[in-house]
Amino acid sequence: MLDIAVIGAGRIGQPEAAASLAAACGAPVITLDQAFEASAVLIGSPTPTHAAYIERAARAGRAVFCEKPVDLSSARVRSCLAVVASAGTPLMVGFNRRFDPHFAALKRRLDAGEAGRLELLTIISRDPNPPPPAYVAASGGLFRDMMIHDLDMARFLLGEEPVELFAAASCQVDPAIASAGDVDTAVVTLRTASGRLCQISNSRRATYGYDQRIEAHGSVGLLRAGNMTATTVEFADGRGFVTDPALPFFLERYAAAYRAEIDAFITAVAAGRKPTPDGADGLKALVLADAAAESAATHRAVALS
Amino acid sequence: MLDIAVIGAGRIGQPEAAASLAAACGAPVITLDQAFEASAVLIGSPTPTHAAYIERAARAGRAVFCEKPVDLSSARVRSCLAVVASAGTPLMVGFNRRFDPHFAALKRRLDAGEAGRLELLTIISRDPNPPPPAYVAASGGLFRDMMIHDLDMARFLLGEEPVELFAAASCQVDPAIASAGDVDTAVVTLRTASGRLCQISNSRRATYGYDQRIEAHGSVGLLRAGNMTATTVEFADGRGFVTDPALPFFLERYAAAYRAEIDAFITAVAAGRKPTPDGADGLKALVLADAAAESAATHRAVALS
Amino acid sequence: MLDIAVIGAGRIGQPEAAASLAAACGAPVITLDQAFEASAVLIGSPTPTHAAYIERAARAGRAVFCEKPVDLSSARVRSCLAVVASAGTPLMVGFNRRFDPHFAALKRRLDAGEAGRLELLTIISRDPNPPPPAYVAASGGLFRDMMIHDLDMARFLLGEEPVELFAAASCQVDPAIASAGDVDTAVVTLRTASGRLCQISNSRRATYGYDQRIEAHGSVGLLRAGNMTATTVEFADGRGFVTDPALPFFLERYAAAYRAEIDAFITAVAAGRKPTPDGADGLKALVLADAAAESAATHRAVALS
Amino acid sequence: MLDIAVIGAGRIGQPEAAASLAAACGAPVITLDQAFEASAVLIGSPTPTHAAYIERAARAGRAVFCEKPVDLSSARVRSCLAVVASAGTPLMVGFNRRFDPHFAALKRRLDAGEAGRLELLTIISRDPNPPPPAYVAASGGLFRDMMIHDLDMARFLLGEEPVELFAAASCQVDPAIASAGDVDTAVVTLRTASGRLCQISNSRRATYGYDQRIEAHGSVGLLRAGNMTATTVEFADGRGFVTDPALPFFLERYAAAYRAEIDAFITAVAAGRKPTPDGADGLKALVLADAAAESAATHRAVALS
Repeated sequence: MLDIAVIGAGRIGQPEAAASLAAACGAPVITLDQAFEASAVLIGSPTPTHAAYIERAARAGRAVFCEKPVDLSSARVRSCLAVVASAGTPLMVGFNRRFDPHFAALKRRLDAGEAGRLELLTIISRDPNPPPPAYVAASGGLFRDMMIHDLDMARFLLGEEPVELFAAASCQVDPAIASAGDVDTAVVTLRTASGRLCQISNSRRATYGYDQRIEAHGSVGLLRAGNMTATTVEFADGRGFVTDPALPFFLERYAAAYRAEIDAFITAVAAGRKPTPDGADGLKALVLADAAAESAATHRAVALS
Repeated sequence: MLDIAVIGAGRIGQPEAAASLAAACGAPVITLDQAFEASAVLIGSPTPTHAAYIERAARAGRAVFCEKPVDLSSARVRSCLAVVASAGTPLMVGFNRRFDPHFAALKRRLDAGEAGRLELLTIISRDPNPPPPAYVAASGGLFRDMMIHDLDMARFLLGEEPVELFAAASCQVDPAIASAGDVDTAVVTLRTASGRLCQISNSRRATYGYDQRIEAHGSVGLLRAGNMTATTVEFADGRGFVTDPALPFFLERYAAAYRAEIDAFITAVAAGRKPTPDGADGLKALVLADAAAESAATHRAVALS
Repeated sequence: MLDIAVIGAGRIGQPEAAASLAAACGAPVITLDQAFEASAVLIGSPTPTHAAYIERAARAGRAVFCEKPVDLSSARVRSCLAVVASAGTPLMVGFNRRFDPHFAALKRRLDAGEAGRLELLTIISRDPNPPPPAYVAASGGLFRDMMIHDLDMARFLLGEEPVELFAAASCQVDPAIASAGDVDTAVVTLRTASGRLCQISNSRRATYGYDQRIEAHGSVGLLRAGNMTATTVEFADGRGFVTDPALPFFLERYAAAYRAEIDAFITAVAAGRKPTPDGADGLKALVLADAAAESAATHRAVALS
Repeated sequence: MLDIAVIGAGRIGQPEAAASLAAACGAPVITLDQAFEASAVLIGSPTPTHAAYIERAARAGRAVFCEKPVDLSSARVRSCLAVVASAGTPLMVGFNRRFDPHFAALKRRLDAGEAGRLELLTIISRDPNPPPPAYVAASGGLFRDMMIHDLDMARFLLGEEPVELFAAASCQVDPAIASAGDVDTAVVTLRTASGRLCQISNSRRATYGYDQRIEAHGSVGLLRAGNMTATTVEFADGRGFVTDPALPFFLERYAAAYRAEIDAFITAVAAGRKPTPDGADGLKALVLADAAAESAATHRAVALS
C-alpha cells in the first residue's frame, strides 16, 4: 500500500473543498506539512506553487505526481528538475491525454507498425468555450496553457523530437483575450529531422463540444481517434441524421484518462519504476510552447535544438 | 445495334410527354403498332396494359423489358408467361433494386462467401410520403405495389425460396389509405427450408428521406448496405453532428440502378442470353405479395409451396 | 443508509467467489439466514432459487431486487408475486437494458415526442457466441432466456401491450442447441391494439461482437441507438475504413446499465417508492416469451389477451 | 448552341486518342487551326502549350476554358492574361474542385452563414500513389502541380486573400522524387488579414484512396465534407466494421465536378457572363504555390502582398 497525499482540491481550493473531497474518499484532511510525510504526493494546487512543492517533496524523498506545468518559466522548471534529479525521486507530470484509452490505443497500434512509418500527424484540439479573462491573464497564454497538451501529444506520437516549429495565431473568439495579450486561435507546424510533419489546430471555442482528434498518416495506412459522444443515439428527420455533440469538456472527455494516469503513477512507484511522462517531458513540451509563442509573435519559424 | 421501342413516357403518359422524351433522346415518336416492330420493347405504360403488350410483343418475336408487375393478378401473369414461353422470346421484369450498385455489391460479396452462410436477412424499405388515394386504389395495395420489391430482393439474396410467410400490417400514416382498403405500415417474416429468416419492414412515410437498407447476417460476418445522401457534408453545433437526410425518393436513389438495369437487358438480348429477373421472378414475387396480403388479413402464417 | 445483502456471487457461486467479492467491496460474508435480515436483498443466485428467496424476503418485509427471471414457469411467477403482493414489499426485476444510458436516452426522447407517434420498432439483439449445451438445457430456451430481454424492451418502448405475436425460429449456429431442443436464431413480430408493429431479431452468434441495437420509427422522425465500441480509433488502408468491433458481451456493453439499475433500486427503496420494472413486468415479459416459444413451435400467430 | 473545340485528348494525346474521343462524342476530328474557329475552345493539351493557345484563341475572339495551370511561370501567366484582357474575351481556368457537389454545398452553406464567421479552415488532399519520376520532372513540383488545387480552394473558401504563408515539406514516400528535386509530403499554413487560419496537408501517397477532405470551423458551427466511397456497403466481423476505401483517384472522385465545371463554362459563355474561376484566380493560386515552394526551401514564412 502506498499512502498518498493530495495537495489542492479543485479550482476553488478552499478548505471546504478539501473537506468535501476527503469525505468522499474516506480520507483525512491533513496539513501541508503532513502531506510531505506521505510516500507519494499528488500536486494539484495552483501553478505558481508547483515547483516549490515538487522540490520540497523530492528533498523529503517522496514520489511526486504534479499536474502540468511544473512552472510557466522554463528556467524555473530546469532548476526544479535539478533538485529532483539530485534527490533521485520519481516525478511524473500530468499530461493526461497520453492515458486516454482512444489515444493510447492509437499509440499502441502505431508503435505496432499498423500504419507503417508515420509521415503526417494531425492534432485537433478545441475547447468548447473561451476561459474567463482572469484565467487567461494567469495562464501563461494559449501556447503554454492549452497547446502544451498537443505539443506533448505530438512528441509522444512522432517518435522523434521536432527540429522546426512555425506558429500562426490570432484572436477571433473574444476581444477580451486580445486585451489580455493572448490569442484564442492558433495553428502550429512541426517538422522532425527525418521529415515527419505535424499540424496542430487549436481554438478556444467549438460550438459542438470539446473537439479532440488525432490522425496519424503512415506509409501503409491511417490511424485516427475521434470525438466521444454521450450516447450512440441518432435522430433523423428532414434535416438529416443527427448524433450527439462531442462530450462537453475535459472532465467528461478525459475521465478515464485521469484514472489511468493516476493508476500508472501508483503502479510505477509501487514497482520502483520511474513513471512517465516525467519532468523532462514537461520541460520539453514547455520549450515547444515557448517556441510557438515566439514564432507567432515574430512570424518566423523557430529552429529547435 | 438493337432498335428499342419505349411504350409509356412517365406517369402522365400524354402525347406531349412522349414528344418531349423522344426529343431529349434524339428518337422519333412512333405509333403503338410501330413499337412492336422494334427488336426490343420497353413497357412502361400503366400496369393494366402490361400483360397484353408483353403477349403482343412476344408473339411478334420481340425481346421485352416490362416494368413490374406483369399484372396484379397472378392468374393473368401465368397466362401471359405461357404465351412468352411458347414464343420463346426474352422477357425481363423491372426489379430495379437488384441493379442498385450498393445492393449488387452486397449480393456479390455475399455470393463470394464473405459473410459465410446467410442466416438472417433484414430489409428496410420506407417511402418518404404516402401516395395519393387515387394511386392507392389502383395499386393493388401495399404488398403488391411496394413490398413486392422487397420480396423480390429477399428471394434474390436468400438463395432459397421461402416456405413460410407471416405479415402484420396497419394503417398508421393516413386514414385515407385505410378508407381505400389498404395499409400503410407492414412487416413480413419469411422462413426458408434450411431455416434462414428474413424480416421486411415497410412504411409509406419516412421523414428523413427514402429509407432503403439491407443487412445480411451470416455465419462469419455481417454485410449491410445503407442509405445514400446527396452530399458528404456534415454540420456540427451544440445539437450534434448532422449529415444530409437520405436521398428523397426512387428517382434519385435508384438512378444508377435504372441505368444498370436497362444495360443488363440490352447486353443480355444483344448476346442472345435470357435476361434476369425474368417472368418467373415476377410471378414468384407476386405470389409472395399475395400471401402477405392474405396473412395480414387473416392473422395467420401462410405455408408456401 | 440501506443495508443490502447479496445472494449469489457470479456464475461460479462458490464460497470463494463470495469471499473474494466481499473483500473487494469491504463487506462481510454472511449466511443465507443473515441475508434475509438485511433491509434489502439482491438475488443473483441460480434461477430455480429465485422465487423461494423472493417469497422468504417478502415475508420478512425486505425489499428485493431479483435478477430476471423470477422463474421459468409463469404459474410459479404468479404464485410468487401473490406472496409479494400480500406482503406489500417492493420487488424489482433485473431487466438491465432499460437502464442502459443509450437506450434510456432513446426512451426519454421518444417519450418527449421527438419522433412523434411511434409506428415501427426494431430490436436487434445478437450474442457473440452460443452458450454451452449445459447452459442451454437449463436456460428455458432462447425465448425465455435471451429474447425475454427484447420482449421487455419492446413493452418498455411500445407504450402499449402487444395483442398479437408471431415467431419464427431455427437452429443455424450449433446443432448441439437443436439436440438440446432449442433454437439459436429467432425473429418475432409484435402488433399492438393501435397498430404499432415491432420486429425483434435474435441470434446466438455475431462475429462482430455483442450486437445490441434499437430503432424507433415515428411519425415525425427516427430515433436509434447503436452498438458501442471499445475505442473511437479507426484504421484505413486499401481494404477500407475499419472501426473497432462491437463491445464483446453484456459485462462490457451493459456495465453502466448494471450500475444505474442498482442505483435505481436503492434510490426507489430509500425513498419509499416502488421500483420498476417490477414483478408484473417480469411476468408479462415471460408470458410473451412463452407465446413466442408456442408460436415458433406451432407456426401460428398467438393472440395475446 | 455553342460550337466548342477541344484541344488535347487525354494524357496520351495521340491522333488515335482524338479519333476515339471524337467518335464517342459524335464529333468530328479537326485540325488545330480549325479549333480556333470554334466559338469556344477547351484547352487540355500539355501545360507548356496552354499560354500560347489561350493567346491565340483570345486574339481570335474565342471563349477559352483552360485546364490549370495557364503556365508554370507566373511571369508568363501575367503576359498571357494581358493578352486576354486586351482581347476582352472570357477565360476560365480549370479548378475542378470548386464544382465538386460536396465542396460546392459546403461553400454555399458557409456563405449562407450556417457556420458563422469562418475562423479555421483545414484542407486535406492526398493522392493515392506518387506519380512516375518523369511526370514529377515536368510538373513544376508538388506545390505548383498538386497543392495549387488546395491553395485555390483555400482562396475560394477563406473569403479573404492570405497575407502570410508558411510551408514545410519533405520527401518521405519515394526517394526518386527527392532525386528529381521535389518533395512528396507538404503542409502549409495560411493567415488572412482578419486572422483566419488555414492548414493544408498534402501527401503523394494514401493507401486508403484519394483523400479529399475539407473542414470549415466557424463561430457558430463546423461544416465539413468527407471522402466518397464506391458503395455504402459495410462488412463486420471480429476485426470491426469495414467500409469501402475512398474513391481511387480524381477521375472517380471528381467526375461530377468535371461535368459541372464544363456546364458552368458553357452556361456563362452562352449567357455572356464572365466565367469563374478566371485567369486572375489561376495567377493568384500560382503565386501562392510559388510562395509555398520558396517557404519550404528557405524555412521562412513568406509575407504576401
